[in-house]
Amino acid sequence: MEARDISRAVIERLPRYYRYLGELKDAGTERISSKELSALMKVTASQIRQDLNHFGGFGQQGYGYNVSYLYEEIAKILGLDRKHNLILIGAGHLGQALANYANFERRGFEIKGIFDIDKDIQGKKIRGITVQPMEEIGNLMRDKNVDIAVLTIPKAEALKVAKELSSYGIKAIWNFAHVDLDVPDDIVVENVHLSESLMRLSYNLSNQVEV
Amino acid sequence: MEARDISRAVIERLPRYYRYLGELKDAGTERISSKELSALMKVTASQIRQDLNHFGGFGQQGYGYNVSYLYEEIAKILGLDRKHNLILIGAGHLGQALANYANFERRGFEIKGIFDIDKDIQGKKIRGITVQPMEEIGNLMRDKNVDIAVLTIPKAEALKVAKELSSYGIKAIWNFAHVDLDVPDDIVVENVHLSESLMRLSYNLSNQVEV
Repeated sequence: MEARDISRAVIERLPRYYRYLGELKDAGTERISSKELSALMKVTASQIRQDLNHFGGFGQQGYGYNVSYLYEEIAKILGLDRKHNLILIGAGHLGQALANYANFERRGFEIKGIFDIDKDIQGKKIRGITVQPMEEIGNLMRDKNVDIAVLTIPKAEALKVAKELSSYGIKAIWNFAHVDLDVPDDIVVENVHLSESLMRLSYNLSNQVEV
Repeated sequence: MEARDISRAVIERLPRYYRYLGELKDAGTERISSKELSALMKVTASQIRQDLNHFGGFGQQGYGYNVSYLYEEIAKILGLDRKHNLILIGAGHLGQALANYANFERRGFEIKGIFDIDKDIQGKKIRGITVQPMEEIGNLMRDKNVDIAVLTIPKAEALKVAKELSSYGIKAIWNFAHVDLDVPDDIVVENVHLSESLMRLSYNLSNQVEV
């Protein structure tokens, strides 16, 4: 089926289905009804049926969903059935936290290079990968088939590096710098603006207190 | 004005306005027209006018928006005009990255305690705060007026700690563990599920390539 038949809102919800189905699969569950999944995920059963109907007739009455099948189908839609090569730019605490997160690798995201501007960090190994100077980014991108760059550097540098990456033909940037990158439209940018998340928390907290 | 008169969608966009207005303020800009702000933020001027109309008549024609005023008003709506006391649970790389992010403090989020299960990390100082054993969480929450707990621990522990925090009367949890916490509805939970963000990137990348 075509990914683009599925609405943006469903796509937004897919990673959460994927997580729950993965846990069910790991626990050896073969089938689950929309009612059971509803209780687990705290989403209405009708929402679940609507969302998962996009994946064909695998929610028959009296059978429920085939957990493995659904898990694999969602993986395909999310592009997790392909391998992706990553480079990580910025080996500070946040960069190291991401580099050490084994789950990314399990899902097909493999770190091929780590770069940092700081000479004291260069040469050190993180998960077996030697941290290289920024000047080496272009060479590594030519040697390995790198799709994705992860930016865990301050915002002024992020703007500069993003331009450089786009000249090397990067396809996607996972941006943790608190700035909107100025790159061509054909580069996918996914922002993680942590301070905006904290502001949403703060807003909800203020509203909660007032009620 | 009442925060709850403003729609959810506008609230979601406010942190970004706040960021741009903060940068303009720091640069000494006193006024900005919706047209200029539109060029800067790559949002239509009419969207900006609609969003910022919620903040009263400060976008008069020929005058534009008063940057400082708007910045302060948005801060109030987001609850950033109050101080919040935080505790950080989990002093691994991610926890340390958050603890070292000075901007949070500048915006009124002050870390009052850091906790970790690992005896090797306990006793160490991060930003002048000694990492304490988990058993001390309750005592510290009683002594200081703690609103928010930041969870940067694995998911099995996060579930357990969230229950404990709710018994101590925590008001909000900023959850980085890849799990949905089971806490009473009056506790605000803001999730940062990094792997879901990476999946959205992956989805967009797959779709981009197919086009």
